[in-house]
Parts: sequence; structure tokens; C-alpha cells
Amino acid sequence: MPLITFKPSDITIDVPAGTDLLQAARQAGVDIDAPCGGKGTCGKCLVKVVSGNLGTGGGSVLDKDDQPGIVQACTTVVGDGPVVIDVPNSLGYEGGKFAEDVGTHDASSAIAPDPATLLVAVTIPEAGLDAVEPDAERLTKSLLPHIGTKGLIVPLNVLQLLPETLRIESGQITVTLARGESDAVSIVEVKPGEGTSRHFGIAIDIGTTTVAVQLVQLTNAKVLGTITDYNGQIPCGLDVISRINYARRQGGLGELKRRVIETINRLIGLLCINSGVGASELCEAAISGNTTMTHLLLGIVPEYIRLAPYTPTILEPMSFSAGEMGLNMNPHAPVYCSPGVGSYVGGDITAGILCTQLADGSGLTSLFLDIGTNGELVVGNGELLMTCACSAGPAFEGGGIRCGMRAATGAIERVEINAKTGVPRLWTVGNALPRGICGSGMISLVAELYCKGLVDQAGKFDRTGRFASIQVSGRQAQYLLATAEEAQGVVAIAVSETDIDNLIRAKAAIYSACSLMLHQLEMRFEDLEHIYIAGGFGRFLDIEKAIAIGLLPDVAREKFTYIGNSSLNGSRRVLISRQQRKLQQQLARKMTYIDLSNDSGYMDQYTAALFLPHTDLRRFPSVKRLIG
Amino acid sequence: MPLITFKPSDITIDVPAGTDLLQAARQAGVDIDAPCGGKGTCGKCLVKVVSGNLGTGGGSVLDKDDQPGIVQACTTVVGDGPVVIDVPNSLGYEGGKFAEDVGTHDASSAIAPDPATLLVAVTIPEAGLDAVEPDAERLTKSLLPHIGTKGLIVPLNVLQLLPETLRIESGQITVTLARGESDAVSIVEVKPGEGTSRHFGIAIDIGTTTVAVQLVQLTNAKVLGTITDYNGQIPCGLDVISRINYARRQGGLGELKRRVIETINRLIGLLCINSGVGASELCEAAISGNTTMTHLLLGIVPEYIRLAPYTPTILEPMSFSAGEMGLNMNPHAPVYCSPGVGSYVGGDITAGILCTQLADGSGLTSLFLDIGTNGELVVGNGELLMTCACSAGPAFEGGGIRCGMRAATGAIERVEINAKTGVPRLWTVGNALPRGICGSGMISLVAELYCKGLVDQAGKFDRTGRFASIQVSGRQAQYLLATAEEAQGVVAIAVSETDIDNLIRAKAAIYSACSLMLHQLEMRFEDLEHIYIAGGFGRFLDIEKAIAIGLLPDVAREKFTYIGNSSLNGSRRVLISRQQRKLQQQLARKMTYIDLSNDSGYMDQYTAALFLPHTDLRRFPSVKRLIG
Repeated sequence: MPLITFKPSDITIDVPAGTDLLQAARQAGVDIDAPCGGKGTCGKCLVKVVSGNLGTGGGSVLDKDDQPGIVQACTTVVGDGPVVIDVPNSLGYEGGKFAEDVGTHDASSAIAPDPATLLVAVTIPEAGLDAVEPDAERLTKSLLPHIGTKGLIVPLNVLQLLPETLRIESGQITVTLARGESDAVSIVEVKPGEGTSRHFGIAIDIGTTTVAVQLVQLTNAKVLGTITDYNGQIPCGLDVISRINYARRQGGLGELKRRVIETINRLIGLLCINSGVGASELCEAAISGNTTMTHLLLGIVPEYIRLAPYTPTILEPMSFSAGEMGLNMNPHAPVYCSPGVGSYVGGDITAGILCTQLADGSGLTSLFLDIGTNGELVVGNGELLMTCACSAGPAFEGGGIRCGMRAATGAIERVEINAKTGVPRLWTVGNALPRGICGSGMISLVAELYCKGLVDQAGKFDRTGRFASIQVSGRQAQYLLATAEEAQGVVAIAVSETDIDNLIRAKAAIYSACSLMLHQLEMRFEDLEHIYIAGGFGRFLDIEKAIAIGLLPDVAREKFTYIGNSSLNGSRRVLISRQQRKLQQQLARKMTYIDLSNDSGYMDQYTAALFLPHTDLRRFPSVKRLIG
Repeated sequence: MPLITFKPSDITIDVPAGTDLLQAARQAGVDIDAPCGGKGTCGKCLVKVVSGNLGTGGGSVLDKDDQPGIVQACTTVVGDGPVVIDVPNSLGYEGGKFAEDVGTHDASSAIAPDPATLLVAVTIPEAGLDAVEPDAERLTKSLLPHIGTKGLIVPLNVLQLLPETLRIESGQITVTLARGESDAVSIVEVKPGEGTSRHFGIAIDIGTTTVAVQLVQLTNAKVLGTITDYNGQIPCGLDVISRINYARRQGGLGELKRRVIETINRLIGLLCINSGVGASELCEAAISGNTTMTHLLLGIVPEYIRLAPYTPTILEPMSFSAGEMGLNMNPHAPVYCSPGVGSYVGGDITAGILCTQLADGSGLTSLFLDIGTNGELVVGNGELLMTCACSAGPAFEGGGIRCGMRAATGAIERVEINAKTGVPRLWTVGNALPRGICGSGMISLVAELYCKGLVDQAGKFDRTGRFASIQVSGRQAQYLLATAEEAQGVVAIAVSETDIDNLIRAKAAIYSACSLMLHQLEMRFEDLEHIYIAGGFGRFLDIEKAIAIGLLPDVAREKFTYIGNSSLNGSRRVLISRQQRKLQQQLARKMTYIDLSNDSGYMDQYTAALFLPHTDLRRFPSVKRLIG
């Protein structure tokens, strides 16, 4: 079989002739971004053939004379001989780029550690004339102070090891107890000797796009490490709806479950290696994800989330054993899944609001905003909470934009436009040559285009010809960010009116949802104490520009707080504290879920928001001032 | 590889040359009795070579010119060509011989069925505007009348199937709930449609020698079938001590666990086929066994049962899932293990006494006697209970007797001796040609020998020469039961003074244990209301003869009641009734365990009982009258 070598990672793999390059890369463990799932439609899986000849089966070398060897990986097949492929901007490069930010936005250090699992060092009297009870009974007796009147559950394989474990260090043992949701206490592990300092847990955020895993020392709530990576389900679809559809395929649900478990297990493995902790020492986990991600993680058919009347199988807080879930931890470790509120407001949100004033009972009203493909919103105080979700579409993640991309190396993340010439100045992630434009770049760009007069309130380009960067061709017009030469890329980077329209729809969905909820509470944006912005997207968000396009309301800037990956931070909170877990469950029960699709007022609000920044400019006084 | 055919079952197997016949038979699933475990020492695994040539590796054809082709299976190896082997009295023949007796000795039909599992038919409102809760929540709500304030545990793979199950028959489902030892209720299974009549459970007795499995319809406590077979652990040793020793070998514990699980699963499979019940429909089990058998079943190191201070790992009542135990049932089915009292008084005894007056609180004092390799005794009433175990040795099961065998076809089970000539008349199991003598046969024989004056009180033969059947050779003497010709066997069947001595030791162990316990209670045998005799051995026991040798006390004959396999019957009781389960646990806690090895009085009692029937003949007035 022909050998394929992938550069720059230098991974070589043997595949049968006729295999497409995308599939070969997956087999080799080389990640190539293919948002369309390899259907040949998105044109984003471009790779360069360095040497060797390709097969004739697929044949989709781009018809650019000046870019020889650039092909779409998904439609190009391997021939008979060896090939060397360059994957110049593969996701593989960016594996570590998430880590820097995580965990810096939450004051969870103030929470007293009181996790659901407990390490107890006891000395069991050695069997003898004074201690005639069976091993298990002597063990139970010595644990009584920690069990009280509750039942004690001893898993069979803990029992199997018990007689020998008790006799290794003359009865001195360390027992890991799990105080679960039910009334019983169960044993996770019994180890010989005294070792109560080694007590570790895992906090996990499962996003549709990224998965973040954090290793926490449970004795003192110290974070020992955090790793984030793309969710291994991405090749099966970019958003929750396409994942739900994928789950309907033969074996699809099993594959989705396997993929996300593999992602989590790989990250757990890396954290363990980095910190010198054994996977079997991980005795507890807390996981938060949106409702679809939680269903897929558990292998539950997600179909009914998508179909009216949009009924998920489970929203309540749940605990399963790591063993039954397939997680690379102590098999008896309890894994807590954050409760959800509705089909589109999941455990990531109930975990997220724990990191905000919405959870602290201060009585002040705040807004929690998680902006992504789906926007999730919570407004209220600790007592009254209202939540909804809206579909923003993929624009904020670079989807649905012709030259869009995720916020990876080379993504244009900030644009300034010279008001006179209309020429842009670009900032890219990693200061690399521009490869495309990400969501925050689009916001920055459209705000500049609008404020500098290159587009009107409806998002239509100035067709007077006074800006050379605006290229008009019949009914079509686009704004040129970089030529192919400037970008040293295959094609030029430009943004069309359709792209701008997609962004406007996305921001309108979010703004109008917020607006509607406040309207129902008879409140105005000005009445909010805080506006919390959560999620990976928020990190790159320029508040000023977001207000300029009408995504965020035009209120005092100090009210905005970026709270990072609040789903992960909230997971850590419920991992280290049973009180936080209770609080989360109380909040989840208090939250009123508003189904926007059933709300007649929403469409009005949405339509009014389909302008830059809004039909009603009085809502955006500072923007109004800016454009004069 | 050479083909070996085993007659009469006509099973043919291909094994490498050099394999011994015992191993080949095991691979073929043909049972050959080999009490020594295949070490070549017991000489009981005789088979006949019908055709073909054996290998030269082992070579152990018996040196009997008149018995060509009779070989020991364990020391004879397969040669190059095909062989036909006749296994004339294999255990395979007798697979069904146990069944007839079982379950006929217990009035459990009077117990109202109230098993730990419950089938509930509910209709879950279809998801819609009136029922917006998630599937799991609607399910929980509809089960509330059966759960009350307890927690509900839903296993992950029940949850995984839930969305589809709910939608097959418009929300009509049947839920199997398990009300366990702890405070939570757990779901065993959720099936579409209404099917509360199919509710099945399994009662199991695990004896050192035999395993009995019973299929019970839990709705009405009806027994659908019972099958008994030898415990698959027998090749690893005949008694509990040899099994404990075997467990110390590399992989030994795992093998013992696997073997008994295989036996149980095979019997479950047969019962299911016979009754048209699917293994996945079995949603509950109750198992009783002695302490060692329970440890081995659970895969717990049994070593410390055998070593001072004789501390088992577990005696409390336990529940595990069928899945974690490896049983061929619904994996979430709770499997209840009867509680034990001490290292040598196990769950078989606490199950057994449920079938007697000892459990009914009548206040009358009775004795429960389970006679086997180990004798287990319980004396008392429902309030005060005393128990002990004594090692009788294998004599009652035909072990330690040169021509001894289990009560299988051809075993001499009854002997009458002509008082004048001393010539025996023999009765055998199945009226077959005599192959050996079983425990009840030995009791019958020794009673006859003593009462007819062929042996004295010490068990020594009359050496006057007046009985031709007594063959004296120097210091050795034996009583001839059948010549090799009469038995059409390999060797003659005879009983030596050593054999008689082994039987006397066995009966003395039992009698003196009973005697000691009564002494401690300041009672006499006459004060007992009932003497219950349990276990397979009791079925063949001639009470008159057992009294004649001093195994049983000389009291009014109507006080003796044979109660069959009370361990199995008690298992059925705790399977069908939670009240019986509670009663069993109360009784187990009330039982005072007497360690005979620590009791100075026991040795005196034992020594006094080492005579026929006893040193003190006044204790046995009817025997005294008989021998004049």
C-alpha cells in the first residue's frame, strides 16, 4: 500500500490506493479542519501536495495555475506511489492555544472544599479474639462516624480486594467514600496505608466545539492543570443540529459517544502525565455541557431534542460511575452531570451562572450571556431567573462566512479602516499571515464598515465607487481584506454582503432575545447590574465594536464582565463543593425556560434588530454620536 | 490430531496426542468423577478403552489380566490414532437424578409473594404542551406512588434506551423496580407495553458438592422448574478446605469463581429453555451457600476463613448486580446473598432454618442438622439460637472410605446382614451392579455389623473366624461386600476397620457437637420438639440405623423430620418475600456462634462418642435393647 507522509508533523501512514486524503489524515491522527464533514462542499480542507502523484479517482486540484499542488483533502484520493502532504495550518498546531485563558475568571478559591468524595484514613482492628467480626463488618464499623445512619454500598471488586488490602499495613487503610445524591454512601476505593493527601478530581466542560478538562486537587481545590482541545465530534458536524442528525445514522450515536469520550480520556491522560497523578487516583468528576452534548456523552438518543415538542430525555442532575461511562478514571468514581433547564439551556449554563452574581442571592438583576452558535441567556437575580436560547447560526464561529474560520492562527481578529481611503489594517491571531476571518474579526470589521460609512444601516455597501476596497460586480459586492498575494494564500480574503447579512442575523438573534426577556420582566438594559459574557468567543470580543453593530446593548461599559469558560469554572465549583452542587440544583429548578419559537413578540424584536445597530437608533446613543 | 469418542454419550473431540483422557473428557464436556482432582491417587476415574491405541506417555493400564482395557483416565494419555472410550458410570448419567426430591419439603406456598423487585405498568404522558418535562422526569413522576420519598436510581443503559422505549407503545411501559437494602429504589428494566405477568426470579443453593437452581414465577411464587447438578468446582477439590487451598494457586480463585458461575449459568440456561423464559427476563436472584462457597462465588480470597482467627471477609446480607457477578440474567437484576453467621455457618444455614420451627417464634426448642463433610447445627427457638459447625470429614459422602463413592448409580445404599452366616444382602442406587458404597450405605452396614455382633463397640471385627465375610490378614481385617466377579468390577468391594473408624469419627463429631450445645443450654435431647435433618445426604438416611451407630440421638422417632434442600427452599423464601429476608437477617443476628475448637468440653464429648453407639450405652436405650 502507498505510504503517505503528513508534514510538518512527519507522520507516515500506509493506506490502500483510493483512500481520500482526509480519511488518511484521520487515520494518521492528523487533524484537518473540514467543517462540512468531508462532503467536498466547504472548500476548507486545503492541503499541499509536496511530492508524489495522486490517484485519478477523485481529482480536484484547484484550477489555479499559480497554486500548483493545492487540493481539497476530502475529494483527493491516494494513488499507487508514496506522497508527501503539507498540512500548513492544521488544527494540530493549535492544540495548546486554549489553555492560557482558562480558570482565570472565577473566584472559586473562596469556596471551602467539601467535595462529594471523602478520603478517610482508618485503622481497622486486626482480626483476632478481640475483633471477631468479618473484614467487611470491621471496615463498616470503623467508617460509622462518616456514614451515620446511611447505608454503605461496597462494590464487589472493592470487596474482592479487601481481605488482602486490610492485611498489607496491619489494618491501616485509606478509604475513598462517595456521598452521592441518594441516601447511601458508597466506597470508591480502599487502599493500604495512609494516603489522604492524594485526592484528585476532574472538572469537564463539553462544548460543541471544544472540550476543556481540569485536574483538581480536592483537598485544597487547587487546579493542577487544564487542557482544552477540539471536541472529537467535529468531523460529524459543526453544530448541535448536525450532531443530532448524525446520531440518526446507523452506529452514529455510538460513534459520537466514543469520539467525545476519547477526547476527554486523551486530555485526562495528558493531565495525569503532566501532574504525576495516576488515572485510578481520579475519584470524582463533574461534567457540564449543553443538553445535546450531555445526551451524546451518555449515549442517549438526542433526536427528541430537535423534534417538537423538544423533549430531552434527561435534565435532572445525574451521577453515574466512571466505569459505566467509559471514562479513564477509577471505575467507581462518581461522575456528576450538571442539570439542564431545557433542550437548549443545559448544564453548561447552570454551571456557568454559579460564577456570577445571579447565584449569590444579592437580589441585584444581572444578565448572563453565552454567545456561540447557540446563544444562551439568563436574566434575573438569585430568586427570579429567566432563561432562553436562540440560534445565532455559526457566524460568530466563522461559519456561514465565505472566508470565515475559527479563531485559530492566521484568523483576522481585528480590523481598522481608514475612513478616507477605506483601506483596512488587519490584526491576526498569532500575528500570522491572514488565512481568513473569525467571528470577533467579523464584528470588528462590520463595526468599522458601518462607523466609517462603508456600509449603511442595512449592511449594504457604498456603491459610489469612492472606496477601492469595495469591489462591485453586478448585484454582488464585496470588501477586500487581503489579496491572495498579500495573504500568500490560494484565494483573496474578502467579505460579501451575504456574509455581513449572516452576522447581522446572528447579532439580532442574541440582542432581541435579551430585549424580549427584559421586556417580559418590565426592565430595561440600564437596570442590569452586570452583563456577564461567557464562552471562548467572548475572550476575543471587543465590547465597543459589539455595541457598534448592536450585538451588545449600549450601557455603561463597566457593567460588562468577561467570565471566561464559566461552564468549566462552574464544573470545578460543583466538583469541589457539595454546597455549590445544591445551589446549582436550586437555581436550575428556579429557572423559567422561555421558548422563543412560541413567543409572538420575538419575531418583532428580531426584525427590529436586523439593522446596524438597530432600527431604533435611540437605543444606541453612543453609536449614534459616533456616526454623527 | 487424534479423535477421541466418549461412549455412551457419543461425544467426539479432537485433542493433541499426549493429552490425558481426564483432560480430554473435560474439554468434551464429559464428566468423569475424579475426587483427587486428577493427581492419579484416588483410582476412581476408571474408564474402558473400547478400541484404538493409547499413547505411551502415561501408561497406567491396571495390572489385571481379566480386565483388559480398564485404565485410569487421569494418568492415561492419547496416542496418535483415534480412540473410543467407554465412561460406564460417568456423572453425566446422573445429571437429572437430584431433581425429584427438591422443593417438596417446604410449605413456602403459605408465604404471600412480596419480592424485592416489583413490576409496574404505567403510562407515561406523551411529550407535548401538557407534558413538557424530560422523559426521565415524566417516568420518575409516574413511578412516585411506588417510590415515595426514596431516591430513584436509573442505570445508564436503561436511560439510553428510554426515549425509544417510551415512544413504541404511546408511553405504555412496564418498569421493573428493585427495592434494595438501601433506601433507594432502582430500575432494573423498562420495557414497552404492559407485561406484568412475566416476572421471574432465580433461587440458588450453592453446595460444596452440588448446585441447585430453581426458576420461580414471582407473581405467584410458583416454582417453574428446578435443576441440580454437581458444582463445577469439584475437580479443584472435594471439600471447602481443599477449595480454599486451590484458591491460593496462581489464578486459582478466578478459576473457582468461573467454574461455579458456569455451573449456575448452565442450569439457568436449561431452566429458561424448559420454561420458555428469556434469561433477560430474570430480574432477581437469591443465593445461599456456605461461607466459603459464598466467598468463592464472589471472587473474594477465602484464605482467612481457614487461618486463625478464622475471619471471613463478609457475612452480612449483600446485594450485587447480576452483571457484576457474571450471572446469565438481566445485568441490573439484584442478587441477594443470604447472610452467614461464622466461617463455617453460612447463608445455607440461615436460609435453611427459615424452613423450620426455629424461625417461627413458637418458643419451642428444636435442632437443625445439616450433615455433610461439614456438619452444621442450630439449636434453639426463634429467640435464642446457638449454632456451631464440626468437621465430619468426607465419610458421609463416601470419601475417605476405600470403596466409598457418592450416592450415584451402583452405590450400595443399604445392607442387611444375616446374623448367623454374616453374609450381606445389598441394595444399590438404581438397582445397578454394586460399584462402591455411599455414606448412607456405610451407616446401614456399620449399624448391621454392630447389631449383628460382627464388630464390637470400638468398631473392631470379630476375629474368631466364625464369619467368612470377615477376612483377616495379619493386623488387617475387612468385611467383604461383593467380590470383583459379583460386582463385575475391577476390584472387590470391601470395608476395612480403617473405613469403619472414619465413619465413627464422622458420627462422633456430629453427635458430640449436638450434645455439647444442648449441655450449654442445660437441655437434653429429649427436650427437643423437632430434629430437622437437612441436605442431600439426609434423603437416604435410615433414621433407625443412624441411631444404631450413634449419629442421631435415641429419641422418639416422630421428632425427626427430613426437610430436603432447605438451603434452596430458604433461598426461594427470601426470593419471594422481603419479610422472610428480614426474618432471616434477624435470625442471623440472633445466632450465637460456638467455636468448638475453642471449647474444652468438646474433646471430652467427642472422645466419649468414638464408640458404637457411645461409651455411655444408657444414652441409647433402644440400641441397647436391640443388641440385648
